[in-house]
Amino acid sequence: MKTSARFYHAGCPVCVAAEQFVSSYLDRSKVELEIVHLGRDKTRLAEAEQAGVRSVPALVVGRQTLHLDFGADLAALR
Amino acid sequence: MKTSARFYHAGCPVCVAAEQFVSSYLDRSKVELEIVHLGRDKTRLAEAEQAGVRSVPALVVGRQTLHLDFGADLAALR
Repeated sequence: MKTSARFYHAGCPVCVAAEQFVSSYLDRSKVELEIVHLGRDKTRLAEAEQAGVRSVPALVVGRQTLHLDFGADLAALR
Repeated sequence: MKTSARFYHAGCPVCVAAEQFVSSYLDRSKVELEIVHLGRDKTRLAEAEQAGVRSVPALVVGRQTLHLDFGADLAALR
């Protein structure tokens, strides 16, 4: 069974670069990847926050949350 | 041909968590991964800095440098 992964971003330049990395190099044989644009889909903000996301871009894989560089605070997307 | 990737860390708890992610989910069919402990191998600090690494843990894939969360400033490892 694949691990669920969510990449949260907001379309910022740092986000785009991180998304390129994630899309290219994440092992899709192990991971089911969903890309979530929090600037456009604000209904997902609470879920991201609950997973420990404090800024974008961020990647949640299973129970692990990783911030990839820094684009924008989650608070700035509300 | 595989893309060369280097994961720079310093053994800190944040580094260990990031290393676990990188080791588990990076697509090894595309990437040749090297793990570099900058606390133990200070001769690699200059190379990391030149790649744009400012803190650890960080991942350099090809020409792209990503900081994964924040463990320690590179300056603290000198």
